[in-house]
Amino acid sequence: MAFQIDKSFIEKIEFLIEEKNNQELQLHLEDLHHADIAEVLDELKLEEATYIIKLLESDKTSEVLMELDVAYREKILSNLNAQEIASEIQEMDTDDAADIVAELSEELKGQVIEQIEDEQFANDIVELLRYDEDSAGGLMAKELIKVNENWSVTGCMSEMRAQAENVTRVHSIYVVDNKGRLKGRLSLKDLITAPSDAHIEDVYINKVDFVNVHTEGEEVARIMQKYDLEAIPVVDELNRLVGRITIDDIVDFIKEEAEKDYQMAAGISEDIDASANIWQMTRARLPWLFLALMGGFVAVLIGETFEPAMKKFGFLFFFTPLIAAMAGNVGVQSSAIIVQGLANGTISGSIISRLLKEVGLSLLNGSALGIILFFGTHFIFGHSYLIGLTISISLISVILIASLIGTFVPIILDRYNIDPALATGPFITTSNDIFGLLIFFSIAKFILGF
Amino acid sequence: MAFQIDKSFIEKIEFLIEEKNNQELQLHLEDLHHADIAEVLDELKLEEATYIIKLLESDKTSEVLMELDVAYREKILSNLNAQEIASEIQEMDTDDAADIVAELSEELKGQVIEQIEDEQFANDIVELLRYDEDSAGGLMAKELIKVNENWSVTGCMSEMRAQAENVTRVHSIYVVDNKGRLKGRLSLKDLITAPSDAHIEDVYINKVDFVNVHTEGEEVARIMQKYDLEAIPVVDELNRLVGRITIDDIVDFIKEEAEKDYQMAAGISEDIDASANIWQMTRARLPWLFLALMGGFVAVLIGETFEPAMKKFGFLFFFTPLIAAMAGNVGVQSSAIIVQGLANGTISGSIISRLLKEVGLSLLNGSALGIILFFGTHFIFGHSYLIGLTISISLISVILIASLIGTFVPIILDRYNIDPALATGPFITTSNDIFGLLIFFSIAKFILGF
Repeated sequence: MAFQIDKSFIEKIEFLIEEKNNQELQLHLEDLHHADIAEVLDELKLEEATYIIKLLESDKTSEVLMELDVAYREKILSNLNAQEIASEIQEMDTDDAADIVAELSEELKGQVIEQIEDEQFANDIVELLRYDEDSAGGLMAKELIKVNENWSVTGCMSEMRAQAENVTRVHSIYVVDNKGRLKGRLSLKDLITAPSDAHIEDVYINKVDFVNVHTEGEEVARIMQKYDLEAIPVVDELNRLVGRITIDDIVDFIKEEAEKDYQMAAGISEDIDASANIWQMTRARLPWLFLALMGGFVAVLIGETFEPAMKKFGFLFFFTPLIAAMAGNVGVQSSAIIVQGLANGTISGSIISRLLKEVGLSLLNGSALGIILFFGTHFIFGHSYLIGLTISISLISVILIASLIGTFVPIILDRYNIDPALATGPFITTSNDIFGLLIFFSIAKFILGF
Repeated sequence: MAFQIDKSFIEKIEFLIEEKNNQELQLHLEDLHHADIAEVLDELKLEEATYIIKLLESDKTSEVLMELDVAYREKILSNLNAQEIASEIQEMDTDDAADIVAELSEELKGQVIEQIEDEQFANDIVELLRYDEDSAGGLMAKELIKVNENWSVTGCMSEMRAQAENVTRVHSIYVVDNKGRLKGRLSLKDLITAPSDAHIEDVYINKVDFVNVHTEGEEVARIMQKYDLEAIPVVDELNRLVGRITIDDIVDFIKEEAEKDYQMAAGISEDIDASANIWQMTRARLPWLFLALMGGFVAVLIGETFEPAMKKFGFLFFFTPLIAAMAGNVGVQSSAIIVQGLANGTISGSIISRLLKEVGLSLLNGSALGIILFFGTHFIFGHSYLIGLTISISLISVILIASLIGTFVPIILDRYNIDPALATGPFITTSNDIFGLLIFFSIAKFILGF
């Protein structure tokens, strides 16, 4: 049932734009979902996309704009004047409108807000702009349905009807007192089944989850997920109901967080995607590569320290990439499990039991691989059993140390409130490379002597 | 506002269980949210947790059970008899109930279903068990509100009231024809504002997104995210409405998918978390380490091939970990961006433009790092400029090749419908290690001659 864009459709649209055949264009686009129109715009040139945005009705294009990539949206908006931007954002919910206004230049911000006809709407946006974008205040929308605890069910039905006009989706009806303080909630189900002569105070549920405007987005996501909420009310310092956050905004937030962790594990430090330009990519990737290069320098120095071995046991140096790679892989595995566990709150039990588990796991995995390496060294590379033993013992030790580093570095970072995801990827591979080589040559020196 | 478990609370609960002070226990736990009770159970011993599950009312414990880890839940359920399990799952929504029944042994499954009093509910579970757990059929619940297009608004209100009793959350009211085929939907907002003498066919929206029972979960997640849906109806082969999927189930699904990709990038092949036992961990991690070890063997062979260089240019071998590490890091960066882009559908443009971008990016990053390496080789390690040049050119070439491999291997895998996430982590690091060393020694041989 999902709409699939094909090349011929895009070509058709491009042709119609060139012909300025507005009627046909509207005919082709008006039945499409806004998310689909956004996909079409993604395939068009900037001027073509702008043409479509100007052509279609604001109630449609405002939703299309919200689906676009931030960078592309900014480009399109820069082709519109303050009046045109204002008419787009007036069709949006306040949270989206505030996000868009926040993206504008300081100068344009004021002009756009001035052009908004609905004074309440303009005030709402100004209020939302005050909050940090990753806080509950920055995530919330002003649209919600609230009723006073003193109203009757029938009385509030008509009031609700009026309020519902402005709200895209009705999740919960919030109940407030005369001072606007959040008292509880009323589900639509309760309302459908309530006797019409009841008062709100008789039927509302006085237990309601809520967050403060300053609650961090990550915490909001955690609460909404844990308690399976579809919307959560937001209160100010005086407990007054000022907005609500819906799960769809949080879904995006959860995805972004997961993607950031993933990128961190891969050594990419900003939130970029495949469409980022070379300069953005470089900024996100080069620092980690630089870190790895510095680690590489240290690895070279370690190699030099053990240069005397080169004459008699030069083949040991053939094994350095193998040892370093195993150290890196084990470290990343261990750290990824911990980083994810910390993010999900599934790290339980004492440090000691975790230590024992990692040691056990490393010895098990290390021994299995060590045995393969032992026979490989002998039968593939023709070295003596003593040398096979040396390399295998080194591997087991390296795996043990690498897994301990991978496990405990993120835990320690987390204790000091540093994002443990930093410890995955290049950071852990690089440090494990270094420790791995040091252990390898030290053990070899101890057993073989050089 | 969120409940925080502290140690003293857990000790108190443990003490009360030991004393069998059921009244106090109920007093302590009855006001807690089921997600919080689940957290408490996580901290208790298995027998203690079972005691609590048996003590509290099924309408509460059924929700608690759904919050628990699968493994822990299975253990608790194994302490309950068929009758007790049936009374728990009767309080659940059909999708959760079916998930729980699916976890039981074949023998117990039949016994539990037999114990369910509500015949319709039992039939629903049997139906849901038929679908693959990752398909729309496996994800959906049978609870939904549907009205016939021929009913009047008033007539359907009372019918809806009855149906609403079984539905935890009312998202949409689905409209069906006399044969039960999905025709459209009615929002609660529309219902609140509709004139009471209207007929459903006059007021319903005949455009509705839906999926088929066989649609894959990933596709359901994509559609619901793209179109910002909070619930989606599911139809069977004859277009009959058979269930609905809500966004909270999909949030879990999205998170699981993101976590799987993350683990894949870290070289962990099963969905495990920090609480998995050593055997599960080994099964998830050892295969990747084995792959890396095999790659390491190849790296050793490459080193041996270039053994003649050891006499005159032994120091080259000090640089192998550096080169291999850089190759691995660049490869993981490139592949992570592509894997994420493929998952989000943000990979656009032609192969050629992507190729040019990767080449440009690699030359930029490579040159920056190459210059540092060039001077480092000279000033830190005291090698000649020719050697510095050799190593720097190798680095730039290695970065270029590694980024091309990292970019195109996932794209190719995706073309052949293989999960591109497979190409991140150990797979890409290992192959880039090998190519890196080969390029390094080949260039060195070409420039320095040995």
